[in-house]
Amino acid sequence: MTEVRISDKNLRRFGHAVFDSVGIPKKIYKTVVDGLVETSLRGVDSHGVRLIPHYIRAAIIGRVNKNPKFSFKKTGSSTGILDADNGHGIAAGTEAMKVAIKLAKRTGMGGVAVRNSSHFGAAAIYSLLAAKNNMIGLSFTHTDSLVLPFGGKKPFLGTNPICFAAPCEGEEPFCLDMATSQIPWNKVLVYRSNKKNLEVGWAADKNGNLCEDPEAASSLLPIGLYKGYGLGLMIEIFSSLLTGMAYGAHINSMYPLDNKKRFLGHFFISIDISRFEKIEVFKKSLKKMMKELRNLPTAPGFDKVRVPGDPEKEAYIRRSKNGIPMSEQEIKAFEKLLGDLNLNNKSIKKLLL
Amino acid sequence: MTEVRISDKNLRRFGHAVFDSVGIPKKIYKTVVDGLVETSLRGVDSHGVRLIPHYIRAAIIGRVNKNPKFSFKKTGSSTGILDADNGHGIAAGTEAMKVAIKLAKRTGMGGVAVRNSSHFGAAAIYSLLAAKNNMIGLSFTHTDSLVLPFGGKKPFLGTNPICFAAPCEGEEPFCLDMATSQIPWNKVLVYRSNKKNLEVGWAADKNGNLCEDPEAASSLLPIGLYKGYGLGLMIEIFSSLLTGMAYGAHINSMYPLDNKKRFLGHFFISIDISRFEKIEVFKKSLKKMMKELRNLPTAPGFDKVRVPGDPEKEAYIRRSKNGIPMSEQEIKAFEKLLGDLNLNNKSIKKLLL
Repeated sequence: MTEVRISDKNLRRFGHAVFDSVGIPKKIYKTVVDGLVETSLRGVDSHGVRLIPHYIRAAIIGRVNKNPKFSFKKTGSSTGILDADNGHGIAAGTEAMKVAIKLAKRTGMGGVAVRNSSHFGAAAIYSLLAAKNNMIGLSFTHTDSLVLPFGGKKPFLGTNPICFAAPCEGEEPFCLDMATSQIPWNKVLVYRSNKKNLEVGWAADKNGNLCEDPEAASSLLPIGLYKGYGLGLMIEIFSSLLTGMAYGAHINSMYPLDNKKRFLGHFFISIDISRFEKIEVFKKSLKKMMKELRNLPTAPGFDKVRVPGDPEKEAYIRRSKNGIPMSEQEIKAFEKLLGDLNLNNKSIKKLLL
Repeated sequence: MTEVRISDKNLRRFGHAVFDSVGIPKKIYKTVVDGLVETSLRGVDSHGVRLIPHYIRAAIIGRVNKNPKFSFKKTGSSTGILDADNGHGIAAGTEAMKVAIKLAKRTGMGGVAVRNSSHFGAAAIYSLLAAKNNMIGLSFTHTDSLVLPFGGKKPFLGTNPICFAAPCEGEEPFCLDMATSQIPWNKVLVYRSNKKNLEVGWAADKNGNLCEDPEAASSLLPIGLYKGYGLGLMIEIFSSLLTGMAYGAHINSMYPLDNKKRFLGHFFISIDISRFEKIEVFKKSLKKMMKELRNLPTAPGFDKVRVPGDPEKEAYIRRSKNGIPMSEQEIKAFEKLLGDLNLNNKSIKKLLL
């Protein structure tokens, strides 16, 4: 499989151009495209620029509102609700976390629920934003039903992620961004195409039996059995019951792409660290703890002990320098998008070379 | 092994009497003992009344301050820090969550860090308190170093629990109270005494290799590998870095019991649901979701799908009626405690029959 590498700068220009061409305003697309490119730089390809064609087509067919009017209702000195008017989730999430940070700057804590939203990309976008403002950031969203409840045989919740970030001295923030399922559904697809067996405990078949055959897999297992199931429910309560959106099995799914709005909910929390500890002391202590962890002796088969966010930081350095690797298939999807949009001028096409 | 059953009422009287006898004031011991008894009623024996002798001895030898002066410093309209003056953790945690609830009633969110504390029992005590006040409650604490960091060969973090509770219609709150390790250390001890093999993935030997032999086990594995490790770190950051207490491997351990103060930290968050959704709608929706989950078809080997807190609710009903089961060993420990305290009057001894 051929792979090309495209600079983040070119991917940003490509993204801006295609979003602009379908009439999405700059204040929206800048946030959305930059969020996707940053995510790709961090090595999280599943939630990076490969989503550009999906996001554009969702806007064209009316699933996502191209020019949403966000409305924010403050409901307390630390709380509020953002109605995303079915716009792109990354723009809504970014706006919501900005408000949560502002509230936390005043009172110490900020909590913002987002309703009527769509796919919000990587949760890290928002928690990192908080951390870069010397806050602890927490982000939650629900997703399509794919994960077995403990003891059940059919999926109910999604891979419901939680992301926690906090600033540390001398490097990018500590950032844990994780789904509460053992693996993402994508991994099942990759194992199918490679004709490789899944590990026991990752997935189950249609009767709820653990299964290694990726062809038979129809649902994912939560981490730590009832524990991951419980965490997924906690995240669902934040994302659905505090936002008034549908939950679990009742959520409109991401695929196939159709014109049904998704009505997703997210929840963001920002905590002002300086209300609890001097920010410099906090950042220094976190760095010290991270350093201690990284210097621990390793178990057999490991080259070193990492802390959450380390693989992403390593990818960021590599990809900022060498470009973001894109598969032939992804480039073809970009080219097809350009064709469909009648964007055939050379200067745009050149960005993908 | 003989087992007796003692009513929660008698255990409460027993607890109050022994705490009183060593000079712990009523305002402290009532909260501590009631917290332990409620935990036993909920079926969580590891964190219930069996801790009474440990808590009393810790007070006698000076690890725990019998008559602490809690001091609360408000640091924002939604935040504050409680110094527990090395008193019993359950009293400190309860006070802290009460303050967090009060803050959240005013602003929508409350966050309270606790410093200079000791073992706080079951995290559910605090989150349930918030839920009973129509709040979402989140509780975090760190614990002794016992769990392998992903890729490491020696324990660094503890089993660091997270507890989330929320109110629902017509029954006790939804409550998830979980450690971030696959199993508690207690389980290793039980498997040792039963000469049974551990499941693969639960524990590791001193070189960081997965091991099934409970005798060789020297550390626990986190749930979902790097995910549980990351969650443990998140909880550590809340409990240590926001409280100024030591972290992970630097925490004074619970056992052996000596006179070293533990200087533990906890963190509590309370979120006023009514700032996001009408409380009646929220409670009704949560109940509806719980009902849907409980009615799902089961996977092979399961009698039904439960939601977090269901086993504890089942235990509560059973134990409120039939008493709390106590092993011969636990009763002996209680009797020894009475002997050591010279509490040999018949009326106290009768409580244990």
